[in-house]
Amino acid sequence: MTIETQRHSAAHVMAAAIQRLFPEAKFGVGPAIENGFYYDIDIGRAVTPEDLEKISAEMKQIMKEHPTFERMELPIDEAIAVFEKAGQVYKVELLKDLKEKGTTSLSESEREEFEAVDRVSLYKTGTFIDLCRGPHVENANQIGAWKILKIAGAYWRGKETNPQMQRIYGLCFATQEDLKAYLTMMEEAERRDHKKLGRDLDLFTFSDLVGSGLPLWTPRGTLVRDLLDAYVWSLRSQKGYMKVTIPHITKKDLYERSGHWAKFQDELFKIISREGHEFALKPMNCPHHTQIFDCRLRSYREMPQRYAETTMVYRDEQSGELSGLSRVRSITQDDAHVFCRKSQIEAECFAIWDIIDTFYSTFGFELNVRLSTHDPEKFEKYLGTKAVWEEAETTLRAMIEKRGRTYVEGKGEAAMYGPKIDFMGKDALGRMHQVATVQLDFNMPERFDLSCVNEQGEKERIVMIHAAIMGSIERFLSVLIEHYAGAFPVWMAPVQVRVAPVADRHNTFAEQLRDELIAAGIRADVDESTESVGKKIRAGEMAKIPYLLVVGDKEIDGTELTVRVRGMKDQLALQKDAFIARVTSESAEHK
Amino acid sequence: MTIETQRHSAAHVMAAAIQRLFPEAKFGVGPAIENGFYYDIDIGRAVTPEDLEKISAEMKQIMKEHPTFERMELPIDEAIAVFEKAGQVYKVELLKDLKEKGTTSLSESEREEFEAVDRVSLYKTGTFIDLCRGPHVENANQIGAWKILKIAGAYWRGKETNPQMQRIYGLCFATQEDLKAYLTMMEEAERRDHKKLGRDLDLFTFSDLVGSGLPLWTPRGTLVRDLLDAYVWSLRSQKGYMKVTIPHITKKDLYERSGHWAKFQDELFKIISREGHEFALKPMNCPHHTQIFDCRLRSYREMPQRYAETTMVYRDEQSGELSGLSRVRSITQDDAHVFCRKSQIEAECFAIWDIIDTFYSTFGFELNVRLSTHDPEKFEKYLGTKAVWEEAETTLRAMIEKRGRTYVEGKGEAAMYGPKIDFMGKDALGRMHQVATVQLDFNMPERFDLSCVNEQGEKERIVMIHAAIMGSIERFLSVLIEHYAGAFPVWMAPVQVRVAPVADRHNTFAEQLRDELIAAGIRADVDESTESVGKKIRAGEMAKIPYLLVVGDKEIDGTELTVRVRGMKDQLALQKDAFIARVTSESAEHK
Repeated sequence: MTIETQRHSAAHVMAAAIQRLFPEAKFGVGPAIENGFYYDIDIGRAVTPEDLEKISAEMKQIMKEHPTFERMELPIDEAIAVFEKAGQVYKVELLKDLKEKGTTSLSESEREEFEAVDRVSLYKTGTFIDLCRGPHVENANQIGAWKILKIAGAYWRGKETNPQMQRIYGLCFATQEDLKAYLTMMEEAERRDHKKLGRDLDLFTFSDLVGSGLPLWTPRGTLVRDLLDAYVWSLRSQKGYMKVTIPHITKKDLYERSGHWAKFQDELFKIISREGHEFALKPMNCPHHTQIFDCRLRSYREMPQRYAETTMVYRDEQSGELSGLSRVRSITQDDAHVFCRKSQIEAECFAIWDIIDTFYSTFGFELNVRLSTHDPEKFEKYLGTKAVWEEAETTLRAMIEKRGRTYVEGKGEAAMYGPKIDFMGKDALGRMHQVATVQLDFNMPERFDLSCVNEQGEKERIVMIHAAIMGSIERFLSVLIEHYAGAFPVWMAPVQVRVAPVADRHNTFAEQLRDELIAAGIRADVDESTESVGKKIRAGEMAKIPYLLVVGDKEIDGTELTVRVRGMKDQLALQKDAFIARVTSESAEHK
Repeated sequence: MTIETQRHSAAHVMAAAIQRLFPEAKFGVGPAIENGFYYDIDIGRAVTPEDLEKISAEMKQIMKEHPTFERMELPIDEAIAVFEKAGQVYKVELLKDLKEKGTTSLSESEREEFEAVDRVSLYKTGTFIDLCRGPHVENANQIGAWKILKIAGAYWRGKETNPQMQRIYGLCFATQEDLKAYLTMMEEAERRDHKKLGRDLDLFTFSDLVGSGLPLWTPRGTLVRDLLDAYVWSLRSQKGYMKVTIPHITKKDLYERSGHWAKFQDELFKIISREGHEFALKPMNCPHHTQIFDCRLRSYREMPQRYAETTMVYRDEQSGELSGLSRVRSITQDDAHVFCRKSQIEAECFAIWDIIDTFYSTFGFELNVRLSTHDPEKFEKYLGTKAVWEEAETTLRAMIEKRGRTYVEGKGEAAMYGPKIDFMGKDALGRMHQVATVQLDFNMPERFDLSCVNEQGEKERIVMIHAAIMGSIERFLSVLIEHYAGAFPVWMAPVQVRVAPVADRHNTFAEQLRDELIAAGIRADVDESTESVGKKIRAGEMAKIPYLLVVGDKEIDGTELTVRVRGMKDQLALQKDAFIARVTSESAEHK
């Protein structure tokens, strides 16, 4: 029995407990999710933390009764009658939708309720009966370790205009050990929360006047962003990339041509100029970049053209969806587009892959590969013909295999204009994040009629490769902050070395030392507060600075520096030159 | 008699000629302007180039008649009657406006028509009578050298909904030599036109799909922008500046607080989000930067905070106002804001002044200083109180004097929030451009309640200094392209060295040489076309590349490079190391 089945069954047990405690409760949907389950309920008022405790106690009680899960199938009209009688208005709505429009009218979580129009099944757990396609455990005693987690608001069927329900989340794992490990990881993740660390380390801020989802980057945060970006650029420039610069707005004409206007209308920030023209803030950069490629006739001698640009794109996200740096309205992308001939695709993709491998190994991220392809059942979501999509997907699949990598296929995960290879990185807490991406695009070149003149003097259709290494710098930094718990490695620490004078009389020496370090290209400062040296050391540790130099009479008289290395108990005694050489080489080697 | 008087009188003579040729012509206004004059007229149809020739001939004829300029004063109602009788509807409208609302209802050029409501004066030149406050020459033979220049469309009183008139421009200088010198300069300026050179040198492009006023920067153009920006940053970083990063949009709340929403509404690109919130594209960066300063309590120990950011701002300019890079809708500013204590103003302003002096001396720009102050008659245009403005202006005036610089005062040229020191640069053609600016702002800190905690533990109101070195990179580059006629100095040339192999068999050696140069940090390429070496040299000259290395059997066998220096007739023979050292030091020294 799979863990998903256990999770789904735990959701039913929770619903059964809720029904016992709140007989008038109306139920929405209650699917299994990653790490657990949830159920959307409506008890006519907000669910309180005390309610959660009661629900948890009642679940334990039910578990002790070892109820079985009994399946029964009913004709759809009878099922409607059953739930109408029980006053379960949400379930009735789903059943009627199913009857009228079939399963395609339902969301993914709603589909878990039914197998098909003619096979509506119900599961009975004790006195609780629920719509469900199953499967379930035979008996509740087969459910592993679980825990009620939290409450959140959720609109019925995800629509703001619908009634708001209460979503109760639970965790469920096969064993107590797994549950405990997950809870420990969650606690650690909370301790590392990038929103809190971002504030503590003075990396970014939000302003009520500017608005949510629009981070403002302080000097330290900007430095970290720029260091990351400079690293990506150093890797790209070795592969022949060139920077370009585009405005952040465009007439809608560009997106009508690219297809974005029709497919992404809702997420576009739209602007009407004083003359009544329609503009949009760019949600991506590829259409603008095509216009640079296409500003003159290109010879095959100039191919490939590799354009890179780190720039912001904008998405009109709903306020409720915004969260720290993970989901923002202004997204900085380290974007690149390669305009190349078909014969150049593999070499260009492998060059990007090399950059990705080098970059992510720096952070100790293990990368998994996913081939994201189109969903043949929803082909209307994409641009272009089936033949073009199959050619592009075949090309990418062959490259992954040539590279000797295992991969999973993500059906329906492709971009609007083409399939892609996505790289999934595993962080220090074992969480997976989608990081880099390489996308193969035969469609934009068609829509913008992009070509070069080949050796025979003929017009040759070219191909576009979209490649981001970090993707969104905001999201990637949210991952990195939590990955390192804010203790950035030397090369990306905003302050690499802090000089802490023992007393006021050591300040001048400390400042000279700082200036020498700065002259050597090291980011250094002095703690000139009037605090004790012990407090200065503690403050340096709190600020997660890699090196602290304590400067007192001994250091002024002698030739050695007293070096406190972050995370190490013992101090080092190093000659100044040796210390400078150490920090410099760590920076250069991205350590 | 001033040249302005001669220019104004020439406008009357032109109008007299037009009246003789087109007795039904209706006249708008005809002021003196820089280098000449214009007159807005309405002859019921478009003015043709042939008309201009006839007008010019007729003016010559009138000049020969040596007409005098006779002044007469009339009560306003009599003046209205005179022009009503003559069918001069535009003049009648101005007179009626003057009568009802006084001179404040008139634009600057319209005010030249009148001294005051009770002193309406007319000037008679031959048979032509015109409204005018004067003064004029006594006789047309006192008018210097003139030339009719061009026709342009102009709406009556500058309003799109008013009738379109024809504006005829003329030049007028004290002597024939001055006029000739100006015409030569204009020809040279046309030859150097940045729009043409930008295309020829592949620096930037425009796209109909993206829209006018929105330049797209190619790899070469981006490189030039980035080199300029990196230079400014290197100067700033020595003065303790730190980079920050902000989103390009904000809720309107920020601009309501700053005052921009009320004062700049028309020029703001406005956005309504899907949730119905009002946002705007930023037209400047200061309000955002205040939110970074204000994200936590600041101690006097942290002051000054110096934020720098090169970022785009947006102005909803009218299509008709756009021109190449000189007037765009997306403007890249090398912006900086210093948040400091009052006691720190002078040191901070002088630090900025040092940067400006160093930066502009690099380009050989002579700088004139203008103190731009508020217009006491239009105080409603500004934020803050009279006392605050006077304090700020006194501070700036004292600084200019301390610096020992002469200056002109530009009344009414201040920013909305404070007075400023503007630097005017003279380019290679003798044209003046407003370049850098330092602005002192006591008002934004009030509106955003910005302060630091001082030595006494009290809240102390701080001051903001706004400083841009290049201002708009687009406008500055339009100036630089024309200043250098596209032949950028070595340090900012996109390609510094081109290697031109004599024949195909020299290509490999040429590529090795290029790679060596690149490894030494020099921007080099190879001309691998199949053209003759003569054509390659010509192409390198057209591309205005500073150094061309011709590579043939002699260079492969010998130890010296054959170096063609841009603009020099003779070739140089240099050892490779010496050549690399020369280019490297020129780059480092911004030569």
